[in-house]
Amino acid sequence: MGPHPAVAAIRLAVRRVLHDILNDHRTTSEAPGLSRPTPHERPSPPLVLVACSGGADSMALASALAFEAPKLGIRAGGITVDHGLQPGSDLRADEVALRLRELGFDPVDSVAVTVGREGGPEAAARDARYTALDAAAVRHGAAAVLLGHTRDDQAETVLLGLARGSGIRSLSGMAAVSGADGRYRRPFLQLDRQTARKACMVQSLPVWDDPHNADPAYTRSRLRHEGLPALEKALGKGVVEALARTAQLSRDDADALDSWAGQAEASVRDGAGLLECAKLYALPPAVRRRILRRAAIEAGAPAGSLFARHIEEVDRLITGWRGQGVINLPGKVVAQRQGGRLVIRQG
Amino acid sequence: MGPHPAVAAIRLAVRRVLHDILNDHRTTSEAPGLSRPTPHERPSPPLVLVACSGGADSMALASALAFEAPKLGIRAGGITVDHGLQPGSDLRADEVALRLRELGFDPVDSVAVTVGREGGPEAAARDARYTALDAAAVRHGAAAVLLGHTRDDQAETVLLGLARGSGIRSLSGMAAVSGADGRYRRPFLQLDRQTARKACMVQSLPVWDDPHNADPAYTRSRLRHEGLPALEKALGKGVVEALARTAQLSRDDADALDSWAGQAEASVRDGAGLLECAKLYALPPAVRRRILRRAAIEAGAPAGSLFARHIEEVDRLITGWRGQGVINLPGKVVAQRQGGRLVIRQG
Repeated sequence: MGPHPAVAAIRLAVRRVLHDILNDHRTTSEAPGLSRPTPHERPSPPLVLVACSGGADSMALASALAFEAPKLGIRAGGITVDHGLQPGSDLRADEVALRLRELGFDPVDSVAVTVGREGGPEAAARDARYTALDAAAVRHGAAAVLLGHTRDDQAETVLLGLARGSGIRSLSGMAAVSGADGRYRRPFLQLDRQTARKACMVQSLPVWDDPHNADPAYTRSRLRHEGLPALEKALGKGVVEALARTAQLSRDDADALDSWAGQAEASVRDGAGLLECAKLYALPPAVRRRILRRAAIEAGAPAGSLFARHIEEVDRLITGWRGQGVINLPGKVVAQRQGGRLVIRQG
Repeated sequence: MGPHPAVAAIRLAVRRVLHDILNDHRTTSEAPGLSRPTPHERPSPPLVLVACSGGADSMALASALAFEAPKLGIRAGGITVDHGLQPGSDLRADEVALRLRELGFDPVDSVAVTVGREGGPEAAARDARYTALDAAAVRHGAAAVLLGHTRDDQAETVLLGLARGSGIRSLSGMAAVSGADGRYRRPFLQLDRQTARKACMVQSLPVWDDPHNADPAYTRSRLRHEGLPALEKALGKGVVEALARTAQLSRDDADALDSWAGQAEASVRDGAGLLECAKLYALPPAVRRRILRRAAIEAGAPAGSLFARHIEEVDRLITGWRGQGVINLPGKVVAQRQGGRLVIRQG
């Protein structure tokens, strides 16, 4: 008798990603210019870390990694981050570290971080967490760090992006592979949260429910417990899957348009490197606005403060020219039209 | 004292669209090849029809058209469609027609249609309605037909598209200009429903609340009364605006990628017109999948039944070739790889 279907599903998801990591690892090890091991000198087995909060998603991920890694000659390690946001969070982190050691992980790190305030509580916690994970990956020379985000997390991320109304890049959610050298991998991005939870249950893995996940003070929590269920009730059960598919399609579309804008940019600059309005005008609006956005960021506008309405206003210098004055953009960047050229610079 | 802000807003929205219609009308009238009127022979003033259900949105639209059209030398007419779905709908249609005549519209048509079953009740009613509107526009030689869709309708349409999970084209909602020769115009697409309702109230225009709009049997109605409010509660009041902005950005992006795919398609066909796998492979996934989709539709697959997962499976003939067999697509279309070529045809 094989494992429970939920356990089989989480293992399969992890196995696929470990295969990818091994392939990438071999390619990197054998890359020209790097010293290749002699036949007598076997390369050390790669280390894969799991980022584990002790919640159901990441505990399921840890259990699957513990099962699959040895079969592929991969060393498995774990890291848990203590955000210090709740009393007793340090004890919680120690307990998670203990569980990871019990699963056979080595090394196991429990790292305390200080969460700042920049960008709101959720963004600040995320920044602190990734800084700690990056440092752990470098410290241990890890080939990859696995993250437990599920399809449900992805659906929530797409809706959060939708609420910004800033275009398809913000609809593209989380990538299956991201970070420096593709360090972060999300094996559960196509798996639903219920499967992860079930896999923990049938494996008798104790899990911790982060009270933040149910705290209506957090946007994501409101979305999870009220917004998405209401949307499912109105639109049917397939909404989460549809949102996750939208993320993937939007990501591919945004990548293609970014590459188009990158290539087109050179062709719309004059000898002095200034943007020529007539040539910009001839481009499709989607490509033109991306070029304008890139130019504004290059001039020093912070990407996070640069909204669609800013770019639309700059775009009207091209498409609706009636002698407008200087347009002020975030980061003290100004845009103006001068002699058929668009000048975007620090004001 | 000027008009109430809500009335000013609906009139401004209509005035802008009437200006566009006049510009297009003049361009068409003066197009080379068409007989130009002699100085003594003035062109007849263009006719603009309003499609009016008697609900707040389209009554507000009708009132604004009645006010603005004479000032621009435009004739204003109206049409109301009796879908025959409720007892007494014929009397309702007559009443709406009467109100339109009272507003000074001429001609005014009340047209009864028979709603089929194809694609579900909402799609069938829509098909019947647009067929009637198209016929009325042709019958009267109308330059345009105004539709009362608001920003709230647009937000609902985006969410309905999101639930399909079939990519950014389905996120692009309704166009401000659509139909044959850009016949349909939606002046209120950036205006909220509340403003239209308020404008009716302050102008003492009686409005009719279609019971379908509150019937939870309809997806759109559930979305309007439960899904969207829950999403606003979770994500904040700006959701409707963000969804409407997403529609516009997605539309531009989808247009640009479609044009790219259209241009790239010729370059990936061999002398015999077959798609070359190696050349397809070199394209960005977003462009390649659009070419595959176009090819499937050209071979007879119905666009509405062709989902992202179908195209993904065909795409794996290019990106994950391991000797797969024939892939069956809707409309009895088959796709297979043969000698480095992709063949998509009737099976």
